[in-house]
Amino acid sequence: MKHLFLAALVGAVVLPASAQFQKPEDAVKYRIAAFQVMGTHFGRLGAMANGKVPFDAAAAAANADIVAMMSKLPFTAFGEGTDKAGNTRAKPEVWSEADKFKAGATKMQEEAAKLQAVAKGGNLDQIKAQFGATAQTCKACHDNFRKD
Amino acid sequence: MKHLFLAALVGAVVLPASAQFQKPEDAVKYRIAAFQVMGTHFGRLGAMANGKVPFDAAAAAANADIVAMMSKLPFTAFGEGTDKAGNTRAKPEVWSEADKFKAGATKMQEEAAKLQAVAKGGNLDQIKAQFGATAQTCKACHDNFRKD
Repeated sequence: MKHLFLAALVGAVVLPASAQFQKPEDAVKYRIAAFQVMGTHFGRLGAMANGKVPFDAAAAAANADIVAMMSKLPFTAFGEGTDKAGNTRAKPEVWSEADKFKAGATKMQEEAAKLQAVAKGGNLDQIKAQFGATAQTCKACHDNFRKD
Repeated sequence: MKHLFLAALVGAVVLPASAQFQKPEDAVKYRIAAFQVMGTHFGRLGAMANGKVPFDAAAAAANADIVAMMSKLPFTAFGEGTDKAGNTRAKPEVWSEADKFKAGATKMQEEAAKLQAVAKGGNLDQIKAQFGATAQTCKACHDNFRKD
């Protein structure tokens, strides 16, 4: 159990769903929820990075903290048997190209951690740049591993 | 904007949805997702507290960290106009008894913060006691403010 949670915190990706979720549907609900929360706060950062709402350093830092924490959560919930459960939009490649999926997840987590650090600094130009770098890691996985 | 995010972080409850969500449905999706993630990790703590899975101090602390952070999120998403949107199970009392709802949310956040502190300590008996105290604050709001 310790291993599972430590793995979740340092970014491991594919674990047996049975280890943490009672049913595959529970894992799917959980990962969708975690992405939903992450996406909401990432979107708020994006609105600032793109000038749609006024830049607020404290708000940016708070959002980036949440994004970084949420980035660690969903990838524990792509275990075996969760490929067709619930409302998942995951492509079969999540499992058939598991190493690539894991690498993409790890890259996203790394960029989100950098975004958290940059946002603490409060420099909008740096936040814009790192927001873009992080957004690319989101897009890469969506393109490769998520159905439209 | 700064005020809104600081308020979110210290536990304020009812804010205009328009301030943070584009549509009421977005707010409802967000708060359901935040509760989903919180509930998953709270449930894992409960499984340990109730002896259904072996106690693991590191796992308990990791789960309690997530619960404490998630506890701060959903209550920014009960703004005006979100009472009947999407798949909400919120009762009208969330808005008609807003002070009571806010007090319940704050109490839950306080107990979750205590649970986080206790879990760091690694003492199972203390975790059991504080898990129970926190669970009561969940139940109180569900009984009063959530449809079955």
